[in-house]
Amino acid sequence: MLMKYHEQIYENLNRLRTQAPLIHNITNYVVMNTTANCLLAAGASPVMAHAIEEVEEMTSISGALVINIGTLDASWVKSMEKAMKTAKEQQIPIVLDPVGAGATSYRTQVVHKLLDEFPPDILRGNASEISALYSEHVQTKGVDSIRESSSAVKAARYLSDRYECVTVISGATDYVIGGQSQGRVFNGCALMGKITGMGCMATALAAGFTAVCELPFDAALSAMAVMGIAGEMAEQKSAGPGTFHPHFLDALYHMEQNEIEKRLKLDTGNAS
Amino acid sequence: MLMKYHEQIYENLNRLRTQAPLIHNITNYVVMNTTANCLLAAGASPVMAHAIEEVEEMTSISGALVINIGTLDASWVKSMEKAMKTAKEQQIPIVLDPVGAGATSYRTQVVHKLLDEFPPDILRGNASEISALYSEHVQTKGVDSIRESSSAVKAARYLSDRYECVTVISGATDYVIGGQSQGRVFNGCALMGKITGMGCMATALAAGFTAVCELPFDAALSAMAVMGIAGEMAEQKSAGPGTFHPHFLDALYHMEQNEIEKRLKLDTGNAS
Amino acid sequence: MLMKYHEQIYENLNRLRTQAPLIHNITNYVVMNTTANCLLAAGASPVMAHAIEEVEEMTSISGALVINIGTLDASWVKSMEKAMKTAKEQQIPIVLDPVGAGATSYRTQVVHKLLDEFPPDILRGNASEISALYSEHVQTKGVDSIRESSSAVKAARYLSDRYECVTVISGATDYVIGGQSQGRVFNGCALMGKITGMGCMATALAAGFTAVCELPFDAALSAMAVMGIAGEMAEQKSAGPGTFHPHFLDALYHMEQNEIEKRLKLDTGNAS
Repeated sequence: MLMKYHEQIYENLNRLRTQAPLIHNITNYVVMNTTANCLLAAGASPVMAHAIEEVEEMTSISGALVINIGTLDASWVKSMEKAMKTAKEQQIPIVLDPVGAGATSYRTQVVHKLLDEFPPDILRGNASEISALYSEHVQTKGVDSIRESSSAVKAARYLSDRYECVTVISGATDYVIGGQSQGRVFNGCALMGKITGMGCMATALAAGFTAVCELPFDAALSAMAVMGIAGEMAEQKSAGPGTFHPHFLDALYHMEQNEIEKRLKLDTGNAS
Repeated sequence: MLMKYHEQIYENLNRLRTQAPLIHNITNYVVMNTTANCLLAAGASPVMAHAIEEVEEMTSISGALVINIGTLDASWVKSMEKAMKTAKEQQIPIVLDPVGAGATSYRTQVVHKLLDEFPPDILRGNASEISALYSEHVQTKGVDSIRESSSAVKAARYLSDRYECVTVISGATDYVIGGQSQGRVFNGCALMGKITGMGCMATALAAGFTAVCELPFDAALSAMAVMGIAGEMAEQKSAGPGTFHPHFLDALYHMEQNEIEKRLKLDTGNAS
Repeated sequence: MLMKYHEQIYENLNRLRTQAPLIHNITNYVVMNTTANCLLAAGASPVMAHAIEEVEEMTSISGALVINIGTLDASWVKSMEKAMKTAKEQQIPIVLDPVGAGATSYRTQVVHKLLDEFPPDILRGNASEISALYSEHVQTKGVDSIRESSSAVKAARYLSDRYECVTVISGATDYVIGGQSQGRVFNGCALMGKITGMGCMATALAAGFTAVCELPFDAALSAMAVMGIAGEMAEQKSAGPGTFHPHFLDALYHMEQNEIEKRLKLDTGNAS
């Protein structure tokens, strides 16, 4: 089984590099540069555009749409809705990142509204965010998780069922949950928690993979595996979070099949 | 006395790493990523949020508030005021960065309004900015200082007295001025002037320290010392401003007591 | 002739370093940090400011104005117009970057409006963008070019004639076209297409050079040559797009006459 998956992930990565799909990002100010560079390094072609006058047209020519609420405000939410409406109508995949859900009621409400109106193909958050979308009694500490990813599995399963989407919980172990399927990715390193936008990059990369994969589950699993493996490759060359970041992009750019084969730690059984 | 201070600064840094306080930043677009990474490397947990609908709630759960006017506009100023009001009511420390005060009358006016309405715990700027808040005849060249930090000491003392805050003048020598106290930090390197957002990082770091220190003076002094020492550590590994930046974050992340002890150049006497 | 040009380019770079002109940028969120650092590394003093209340004043004290529509919306376009009006009145050079023109009709329309109202001194885009401004039948893939730069020469010549500006087409070969003059710069490397904002940096750098050069053609040619040479210097030290970026800034910062003399590949004949 591992054999099968590392080959599949590499094939997906190769498709990303060969097809270079346009990925439309309506995302937060903090990570715009970072996620654009992440998508470029992985082979995709990113565009950031939020004007209400153009999001419909931009989404229409894109292979996938990223919606990330990290620095949301009312006017951006309107553009997000318009872009998501376009994507649903044209069957363009949507990946939603509920950054900081649970930290303020405004964020939680906006995410619930977007989920209800335009259920995404993939929903990716950390354990705090995913939990906060399941139970309103969960408090998030800003945008960082204060929970183990395993604690949010029940929430993720509920959200996947309700919105018929794949839900990803990022953390030391990444959970990818959708329908009857569940995957766990054990790759990655602790330094990844010390660089802003790592979660947002995973979201953007998942969108990249949805543009070249048939199944959102496959796209999400590939994204989390590639993120984790690039993290491990970068850690070996880094002296801290500052030098980690450039080496991470280099790793995305250069990742070959043997690195995936050697490093992939994946479980697709249903034990949680 | 030096002995005492290097131990105090390291203890403050340790508290930052252990307590990992949430720092709410309403800051400029240019440095959002940079300051988030700076706070993470130093041990804090940054969040950027500017929507009028959520700033009250976000500030309420934070250990400190950063207000940075680097790319201000009218709608952001409203959010800044609402967040500052919340912080004052709940005794959450505020650090204000008057980026580009003196470059346009709009910036200068906004800063005066914020200072009058919600005096911060710490005000940090370069010599041009601090001088421009004291005398309207001072012209700033964009966001870069065209003065020696010593030239702004009188202005800083006036502002500290008037707003009962600690005022920091960044430069080759950093001045930390509040009440009867004055500290000068001589650490740092020339390359720090060639990377955008170094001042904004100092502001964010000062906010981090206010969340774990009792006295704003102590927080400001620790921030400027840690910035300067990290700059010196990074300079040794850098070939220019591009490679300096990642090494600077690594230095923040790894800084140990012996580095502070070895490098700290601090004067807390009252001679200016 | 080559002799003459490498000396001229180095003299222009030296002027940039010595005069450190203030460059006012109304630019996109993705590259604000990147272009600020690029301008600082090359010796200029960048400021980003978009508030309608202050753009007039900020442009007035600047040596050049950058208008970059990468993440435009209606309110930013108003500020761009006000700043450009000020620049025209005060004969401050303008460099316009039509990011993503052709990707959406909104972008194309905004650029046409800005060109008609306030013709810039330099217009810089990739082949897709420049072509889209010439023929409305050209479709751009987001912000990345899908054409060879040579395919846009006719479009560039038309735009240069119509708006009496210098038009730059960036690509593997950069074309600088204005009046009866044409220059081609063959410097650069493939990795430059894998980092977001490289085109935007070229635009910002061109603005830096307009502030210290008499002729926009000379400024544009210097910017493209310095970009390409810095790219080649950085490529030698890089393992991928992540490590390329810091080395690129270092190269800008350290570039000396012998590097320009050794590497410059320039043709100023009229063969296209």
